[in-house]
Amino acid sequence: MYTGLTIEPPFFEIGPKAFMYGERMLQLAKVADEVSVRYDVRIILTPQPSDIYLLAKETKRVLIFAQHMDPLPVGRGLGSILPEAIKAAGAVGVMLNHAEKPMTIANLYQAIKRADKVGLATIVCADSIKEAEAIAHFSPNIIVAEPTELIGTGQTSNEEYVIATTSAIKKINSRIQVLQAAGIKNEQDVYKVIKAGADATGTTSGIMKAENPEAMLDKMIRAVRMAWDETH
Amino acid sequence: MYTGLTIEPPFFEIGPKAFMYGERMLQLAKVADEVSVRYDVRIILTPQPSDIYLLAKETKRVLIFAQHMDPLPVGRGLGSILPEAIKAAGAVGVMLNHAEKPMTIANLYQAIKRADKVGLATIVCADSIKEAEAIAHFSPNIIVAEPTELIGTGQTSNEEYVIATTSAIKKINSRIQVLQAAGIKNEQDVYKVIKAGADATGTTSGIMKAENPEAMLDKMIRAVRMAWDETH
Amino acid sequence: MYTGLTIEPPFFEIGPKAFMYGERMLQLAKVADEVSVRYDVRIILTPQPSDIYLLAKETKRVLIFAQHMDPLPVGRGLGSILPEAIKAAGAVGVMLNHAEKPMTIANLYQAIKRADKVGLATIVCADSIKEAEAIAHFSPNIIVAEPTELIGTGQTSNEEYVIATTSAIKKINSRIQVLQAAGIKNEQDVYKVIKAGADATGTTSGIMKAENPEAMLDKMIRAVRMAWDETH
Amino acid sequence: MYTGLTIEPPFFEIGPKAFMYGERMLQLAKVADEVSVRYDVRIILTPQPSDIYLLAKETKRVLIFAQHMDPLPVGRGLGSILPEAIKAAGAVGVMLNHAEKPMTIANLYQAIKRADKVGLATIVCADSIKEAEAIAHFSPNIIVAEPTELIGTGQTSNEEYVIATTSAIKKINSRIQVLQAAGIKNEQDVYKVIKAGADATGTTSGIMKAENPEAMLDKMIRAVRMAWDETH
Repeated sequence: MYTGLTIEPPFFEIGPKAFMYGERMLQLAKVADEVSVRYDVRIILTPQPSDIYLLAKETKRVLIFAQHMDPLPVGRGLGSILPEAIKAAGAVGVMLNHAEKPMTIANLYQAIKRADKVGLATIVCADSIKEAEAIAHFSPNIIVAEPTELIGTGQTSNEEYVIATTSAIKKINSRIQVLQAAGIKNEQDVYKVIKAGADATGTTSGIMKAENPEAMLDKMIRAVRMAWDETH
Repeated sequence: MYTGLTIEPPFFEIGPKAFMYGERMLQLAKVADEVSVRYDVRIILTPQPSDIYLLAKETKRVLIFAQHMDPLPVGRGLGSILPEAIKAAGAVGVMLNHAEKPMTIANLYQAIKRADKVGLATIVCADSIKEAEAIAHFSPNIIVAEPTELIGTGQTSNEEYVIATTSAIKKINSRIQVLQAAGIKNEQDVYKVIKAGADATGTTSGIMKAENPEAMLDKMIRAVRMAWDETH
Repeated sequence: MYTGLTIEPPFFEIGPKAFMYGERMLQLAKVADEVSVRYDVRIILTPQPSDIYLLAKETKRVLIFAQHMDPLPVGRGLGSILPEAIKAAGAVGVMLNHAEKPMTIANLYQAIKRADKVGLATIVCADSIKEAEAIAHFSPNIIVAEPTELIGTGQTSNEEYVIATTSAIKKINSRIQVLQAAGIKNEQDVYKVIKAGADATGTTSGIMKAENPEAMLDKMIRAVRMAWDETH
Repeated sequence: MYTGLTIEPPFFEIGPKAFMYGERMLQLAKVADEVSVRYDVRIILTPQPSDIYLLAKETKRVLIFAQHMDPLPVGRGLGSILPEAIKAAGAVGVMLNHAEKPMTIANLYQAIKRADKVGLATIVCADSIKEAEAIAHFSPNIIVAEPTELIGTGQTSNEEYVIATTSAIKKINSRIQVLQAAGIKNEQDVYKVIKAGADATGTTSGIMKAENPEAMLDKMIRAVRMAWDETH
């Protein structure tokens, strides 16, 4: 676990995936910067690798994380994402093992160790409680609990699930932070997840597909703050 | 084939792979810029994706190509390299199918079509003459002929091989340019390959592992010009 | 191209994928054996690797092809499909580069060369005419033309498409046989494709999802023979 | 964890990888059968998938495990290894996540759940103690502890390491059996590992590259029995 970056809860992750990039991404990132200060909520933004440098340079408070990196050392490896390179470009962390970019167990473990050494916080995705427990042994900074096992059951990320995942992870390593990803579509969903006890949540499509992404972002971060203040 | 970028021969590709990044990469890129003008030789530089923006912004004549991209459309795809994103960051082209980042046939064909549409020149690697012929049907701008089939035979990229690969490719599509990659270690190797009839060559370790990469770069580009002028 | 196996047209490929296996697969294979003799149509059957031995031993005329193999040499490679091993188990050929098991260009080329050497016929899938042309340079025995580019256009594998793909492939290597895969659902589809000029066709779901796979198989092979006799 | 197969310690795994297949494999399997009875040591044999049927049919006591399988359901998936198909061919278990066939976390977890349901014992490889702990949360039947972290340190699978891995795994799930893979080259190595407290060990090259594989197998299994009897 990289100890050089402390992210106080509550926090929120915006995942642009391959939806947004370049100037449009920068515009949203600047609003994220303002919103982060306005509501005192840390925001993690995971842009395309080619946008890391510009976003890191043009924002102040938003935390720029890479979408992925490879656990290779400096040297050969054309087409790779080198840990040192994303760090040099301004990333302060990296997302790993998202369902759209799954990693082998050996590679994930190596990547977390590389991140710890290079100085990058890690946010690692887990599709189930069992996978979250497994990943907890590698001591990432944050685990994203994606309750695919509950999809369609109607109980997605309710209080019970938030407590179950959090306690399962904390039992193995109490310093790991837990982000509850839960098909967040709007500010009401955000409010509910934080009220259910989550330290953090996030979204891709909730913002990327919103008619006005900046307005939706503001509403969501405001909901984070409101729900947090009501419960803490 | 993307027709928006014309690269007059002779040209040269520098492949930093995961050897060089950030400030050190920028320093070499600036020297490449000067050297490109000094000897009137176009230089393609393929940096880590997180370096594309900075290098494109801080150089004038060097052609910044991505090391890889994925043929996905704008939308989902966390951990991908989106064509539109690298273009927006300043890349003018993309390398595809390097032996360290091999692509499936379907993905390579889609990626070249995506590059054509987005406006990126393509430089595609082939490990053998047969593979070069196959790839020629997808009409990339440049094919890199990597004669792995000749490794250890002592006849690496001699005149005969240069002629054989070039004619095999041109027979299928005469507008495709051919870059002869041939284990280039120093300026003598560069000289020999261009004298053998190549329009272009390039190197990774020849520069990346040189004691003084900038000095070696200067010598190599000077060798390109000298050999070219003697044969044309 | 492996020359040890000659498959006279018309022929037909049954692709059980992961739908059918074990005793149920054997039952269908035996019917395929009878049907192949009854209508004098060669049938290629591509079972799960663990079914190759049993099917090869218990059938006489059906041609057992593996669904895939890896181009590795004898030695290390846990979890691989070794060419020599499927040959020893009784396979006479191998399918390569199906859309559900795509291969890199380098691996496909190596796999075809390995098959030629070990003594396995190759049936290689192509998603478009351009890909079929590319693959033709590697001289497989059979190319499967899967007109994904025509999906939704209503002109799937009509006479025009059959002629276009066949002539594109034959222009590069006239000895390659062409199998037209075209979303075959029933015997009428089979009849149409062979009437359109194809030497061969095949199906997965047309038989695997039929209420009575054996009855459907009989109807389809009968349609192959009827259409073939009417056009040759 | 599949409970339908109990393997009493001590046991031993022979991994032919892609070294041995067909008739030669059968010959070794028959000797393994005899040796297993002679010394009362269970032997797991992981052949190529195309050899499963024949070996399962022609042996009595050897446990035939597949080298790999995919976690897909019955249906589509050309080129896959279907759990139901290897079971039907006679496999009683499956190896997963070997360093030469690494799996993503999500796939490994799904594969173990599929094996449990279909009725296949699972033997899962781990490259380090941390990875072994992670995998233990998925409750496989056996974990192979491959101490790559100790390679070159001279303390490979000594008593201390055997105790450390075993206790780390058992702490998470005491029913998981631990196989110590330790670069076993000959019967002395086997003796040492079992004496160090291991319940099981195994080898690929120790037998595959032996001048006389059958003789080496006999010596190794004899060493297992001797070391076991001296310590229990």
